[in-house]
Amino acid sequence: MRVVALAGGTGGAKLAEGLAAVLPPGDLTVIVNTGDDTERHGLLVMPDHDAVMYMLAGRFDFERGWGHVDETWTVMDGLAEYGEEAWFRLGDRDFATHIARSARIREGRAPTEVVRSLQEALGIATPILPMADAAVRTQVRTDEGWLDFQEYFVHLRQGPDVREVRFAGDLSPTPQVLDAVEAAEVIVIGPSNPIVSIGPILAGPIRALLEGRGTAGIPVVAVSPIVGGVALKGPADRMLVSLGHESSARGVARLYSGLATAFVLDTVDATQEPDVAALGLRTLVTDTIMADAAGRARLALAVLEFAGRP
Amino acid sequence: MRVVALAGGTGGAKLAEGLAAVLPPGDLTVIVNTGDDTERHGLLVMPDHDAVMYMLAGRFDFERGWGHVDETWTVMDGLAEYGEEAWFRLGDRDFATHIARSARIREGRAPTEVVRSLQEALGIATPILPMADAAVRTQVRTDEGWLDFQEYFVHLRQGPDVREVRFAGDLSPTPQVLDAVEAAEVIVIGPSNPIVSIGPILAGPIRALLEGRGTAGIPVVAVSPIVGGVALKGPADRMLVSLGHESSARGVARLYSGLATAFVLDTVDATQEPDVAALGLRTLVTDTIMADAAGRARLALAVLEFAGRP
Repeated sequence: MRVVALAGGTGGAKLAEGLAAVLPPGDLTVIVNTGDDTERHGLLVMPDHDAVMYMLAGRFDFERGWGHVDETWTVMDGLAEYGEEAWFRLGDRDFATHIARSARIREGRAPTEVVRSLQEALGIATPILPMADAAVRTQVRTDEGWLDFQEYFVHLRQGPDVREVRFAGDLSPTPQVLDAVEAAEVIVIGPSNPIVSIGPILAGPIRALLEGRGTAGIPVVAVSPIVGGVALKGPADRMLVSLGHESSARGVARLYSGLATAFVLDTVDATQEPDVAALGLRTLVTDTIMADAAGRARLALAVLEFAGRP
Repeated sequence: MRVVALAGGTGGAKLAEGLAAVLPPGDLTVIVNTGDDTERHGLLVMPDHDAVMYMLAGRFDFERGWGHVDETWTVMDGLAEYGEEAWFRLGDRDFATHIARSARIREGRAPTEVVRSLQEALGIATPILPMADAAVRTQVRTDEGWLDFQEYFVHLRQGPDVREVRFAGDLSPTPQVLDAVEAAEVIVIGPSNPIVSIGPILAGPIRALLEGRGTAGIPVVAVSPIVGGVALKGPADRMLVSLGHESSARGVARLYSGLATAFVLDTVDATQEPDVAALGLRTLVTDTIMADAAGRARLALAVLEFAGRP
């Protein structure tokens, strides 16, 4: 069963890992957000891609909540000593990723091909496709004006309210993304921030393609990143509210209505199921917390089983 | 007393450190070879500059003989895992240097200015000037053909005999180098490889400027890197022989005749003093081995005192 999963950072990455664990090798393709990519110290950093890559390689640092396990910080400390901006911390092992990627892209190779070479080096059978090869940069408007996403997300620690979001750059999907969506028998929208993780992917031509697949009868299953009204990680809850949405599974379902054909919400949000169903979405109420590898596999299996139901 | 020292890697760097230790701050300027600079993993690596910089910052790894003290190797191991060429080992702290430098140069700043910012961050009062801002690459011809310098020096561990040396690139000195040479009251040619460390500096217009200074009565003192017929470090001895020179203090003095006005040779080579004097060079025979900081300061003082003699 060919499955395409859309993912941002942690939540989407966890479900992607669960899907990779339960599907036969080669059946899964992950499309990751590139809107939070950033250039640091002359190197291209791709936080969502790398979260998924490290997760699928079994190297994600769950304790810290980002980056590679067993990190050291020698390079970053050295850069700080040289007066480089140091609020965006990168570990030494992580720097190897950014250095190898940047060098290969500078040689003229496409980002999609370059990151696939990194994934393969880490033994990852699942292609993790950047949503686009051209640079896309998410920007958020706060009361202080437009900010680059990482300025808001890391430097200001998601403090300011977000009033507006935009995606600067060329959102054209790559041939690899088009092929994967075209071939998909199930499409999963992971439990990532719908505004700034899934939002950038859907801001481009991919959205219409996914809608077309849903209309053609392919299940498009979204998993709520909001559980009990809050985001398990990150600012999705406050961002939904400041942008005029409801911070709830129902609020997320509304955002995906017209695109998703089915929706998964947590058992703690079971009372919202009728409202989600009223949007025309099939619903699954289940435990969506992925506390460990077993939890990730369990949710992945539940989502796939639900997707396959008539 | 304004002193300009020409330096390559270890030997020249050690003497430069000794001079910096005994001269008032601001009196010394070091001009370093850039012919062994190289691009690794998309980053500009400047081995001779960095040897001098780490030496003057008290961070040179004397045990290893290159690089920054207390190094770790996480980035390099990660790059190797991604399939990057790994024979040119770079430590994590060292990577901070290459990353910060490359990022700043890519912003359009001149290499001389960029490396000065790094030196200042490490508390180094002495300007360490690259011999040129444009890329210069030393290449050596062996029986297998022309090789990039680091391919010969690091990858092949200086195994093949060197038949010919050339310097590809634009050897134009920077304004900072011209000013330093113009203002110099003493010029010291450090005990570095005369072919591939001092050679690139002298291959450009700097040579004629130095000759002019010498003719004008400014002492130009060269210190022999060959002691008892051998190089303390590196392939200078074998390279001298394979290029048709003599591997001796006298052989080095011959290479510098017409440029240097004075020559320092080690006590073990005292019998060569008449031959060196016969070249028209003033001579100093002294202990040139710099085993520690005291040894470096001692040789620096001896060289300066010798330079100041009528």
